[in-house]
Amino acid sequence: MPKTLTFPEFPLEDGTTLREVPVAYQTWGTLNAAGTNAVVVCHALTGTPDVADWWDGLLGAGRALDPTEDFVVCLNVPGSPYGSVSPLTEHPASGARYGADFPGFTTRDTVRLHRRALEQLGVRRVRCAVGGSMGGMHVLEWAFETTDDGAPFVQALVPIAVGGRHTAWQIGWSEAQRQAITTDPKWRGGEYPLDDPPTDGLASARMMAMVSYRSQPSFDGRFGRDVMADQDGAPYAVESYLRYQGEKLVDRFDPGCYVALTQQMDTHDVARGRGAYEAVLESIEQPALVVGIDSDVLYPLSEQRELAAHLPRATLEVLSAPHGHDAFLIELDALNETIAAWRRDERRPVTAKSVEP
Amino acid sequence: MPKTLTFPEFPLEDGTTLREVPVAYQTWGTLNAAGTNAVVVCHALTGTPDVADWWDGLLGAGRALDPTEDFVVCLNVPGSPYGSVSPLTEHPASGARYGADFPGFTTRDTVRLHRRALEQLGVRRVRCAVGGSMGGMHVLEWAFETTDDGAPFVQALVPIAVGGRHTAWQIGWSEAQRQAITTDPKWRGGEYPLDDPPTDGLASARMMAMVSYRSQPSFDGRFGRDVMADQDGAPYAVESYLRYQGEKLVDRFDPGCYVALTQQMDTHDVARGRGAYEAVLESIEQPALVVGIDSDVLYPLSEQRELAAHLPRATLEVLSAPHGHDAFLIELDALNETIAAWRRDERRPVTAKSVEP
Repeated sequence: MPKTLTFPEFPLEDGTTLREVPVAYQTWGTLNAAGTNAVVVCHALTGTPDVADWWDGLLGAGRALDPTEDFVVCLNVPGSPYGSVSPLTEHPASGARYGADFPGFTTRDTVRLHRRALEQLGVRRVRCAVGGSMGGMHVLEWAFETTDDGAPFVQALVPIAVGGRHTAWQIGWSEAQRQAITTDPKWRGGEYPLDDPPTDGLASARMMAMVSYRSQPSFDGRFGRDVMADQDGAPYAVESYLRYQGEKLVDRFDPGCYVALTQQMDTHDVARGRGAYEAVLESIEQPALVVGIDSDVLYPLSEQRELAAHLPRATLEVLSAPHGHDAFLIELDALNETIAAWRRDERRPVTAKSVEP
Repeated sequence: MPKTLTFPEFPLEDGTTLREVPVAYQTWGTLNAAGTNAVVVCHALTGTPDVADWWDGLLGAGRALDPTEDFVVCLNVPGSPYGSVSPLTEHPASGARYGADFPGFTTRDTVRLHRRALEQLGVRRVRCAVGGSMGGMHVLEWAFETTDDGAPFVQALVPIAVGGRHTAWQIGWSEAQRQAITTDPKWRGGEYPLDDPPTDGLASARMMAMVSYRSQPSFDGRFGRDVMADQDGAPYAVESYLRYQGEKLVDRFDPGCYVALTQQMDTHDVARGRGAYEAVLESIEQPALVVGIDSDVLYPLSEQRELAAHLPRATLEVLSAPHGHDAFLIELDALNETIAAWRRDERRPVTAKSVEP
């Protein structure tokens, strides 16, 4: 079960200071006495801090995330409805939900808030930060966190199915989805009552997103032109599937949180305020395992190639799978093997094999 | 300016018979005495019969569509708001618009109705049918139209950026877009008043579609992470662009027509009722120039490769362009050259070069 830490105040990049800021998290394994065996798992857009729920194949003795050796921590991202501060949180002064007043968290704000939470848990060094999609954005931001003596706080990075900055392609997808939510009349400027949220808009956004998470071969292999003879108005199987996916998300996610998190993702740019994009990537000194998916439409392989070309100590691994972007949540055996093997290499003294792209 | 023919009645595949059925069309050049020099141009989803408006680079003396030699005809697709029968048409009996009662036209219904229109214009043979995206679907259906003596009515085919059947991938995109329209409360079951249509839903659908028509490199090259400092609520240039595209379509298109036409596209399957898919493609005897776009996300190149592999007399041409699917509306010089050169070859006596893939 998730636990929660609450911080009396937290200042954001945009100058806002929040009070009474909850951060939900879940852990597996035990922190060592030195506080140096943490592994941070960063969840994706609609993910939860319960890694065992969505990455069970990666979590366990001998696996990529090994609670017998690692103190595995997953912290819920601000804006998400799974326990950290979000549009659903009550403002401590007014008692009303933040709603549309929820401030604009950047990916950097998230990492700084999570850093505080880790320190409160006694973490002094992180062995590795691992995550896909939005999680990969936070992994890349973790690269820039340093300790008081200027050393990296996180020792190794595993960004998956992501690039170094959110590009117009991804912002375009985000915005088309937000538009479906914010033009739902039930959106009411973000100030909807929780018993009557803009569910149609959220379901449409999810349907759209599900297309972007998959691929032409995966949809065609699974559905082809199959028809659902008994379903009025949704003759094709893929239509039923997408509608079901839309409805399923409505049951477990909040439209305002969806808007807030996609906006946070749009802030992703490792270079913002740090210099030229390539030079900033080249300044990242940690070893990095960059994982791309050859069928990813949303964060295409070219973006992981770019990361691997510029991160000085990168290894690029390409997951060959028909599923598209979602392969990082589907091809768990292959992903587990890839990350576990790389982490074993990384624990050995540095060799040419393990550090050269 | 478009002209209109009206047919007293027209029976659809589903058994419905429509009365007083208008077909809008536009022509360039002169039909020869034998009625054998027609070239049929098939328009895309939101296209009009005015080829000069959207394919001007292909239309003219010496070009792919040459009015000094060809009788160029573009017929508006049923369901489209540009003059042919559609949800906007008044039912001849009741005087009320068809609205949600507009029947389900298949791509085959469209081609049979257009065939009637061509015959009324005196066309006895068509030299070539050319079209991209939805237009390519109709081009492929034209392959199966025969004259009384069993000969092909259309002599040559140029399907562009399309496959032989609408796949789950494309149906998925369609359905997510329809969902945005039909969950707009102004949709009212398709029976909205024309002065208060579900414009938000149509705009969202168009934004989604615009992403699918482009590509990661085209969006990134054009917008990157550019911001629009003076635009509240749409910080990124790509967001402004998409919103503008959504609003622009609302000014010139009808939501019910959008739903009807995307449903028609979903019926696209050359093999329906004709046999095994590959065998049906292999039965198409006309020479075909299959054009694919290497960056097409929506109708990926694999689908044109499949067509070219199975059409016995196909030539595959790959348009290399960063724009994605919309390249067939952007790279007009390259497309014109490709089609014009192939048509010149086709007019020569059959040679190995011109007919082998």
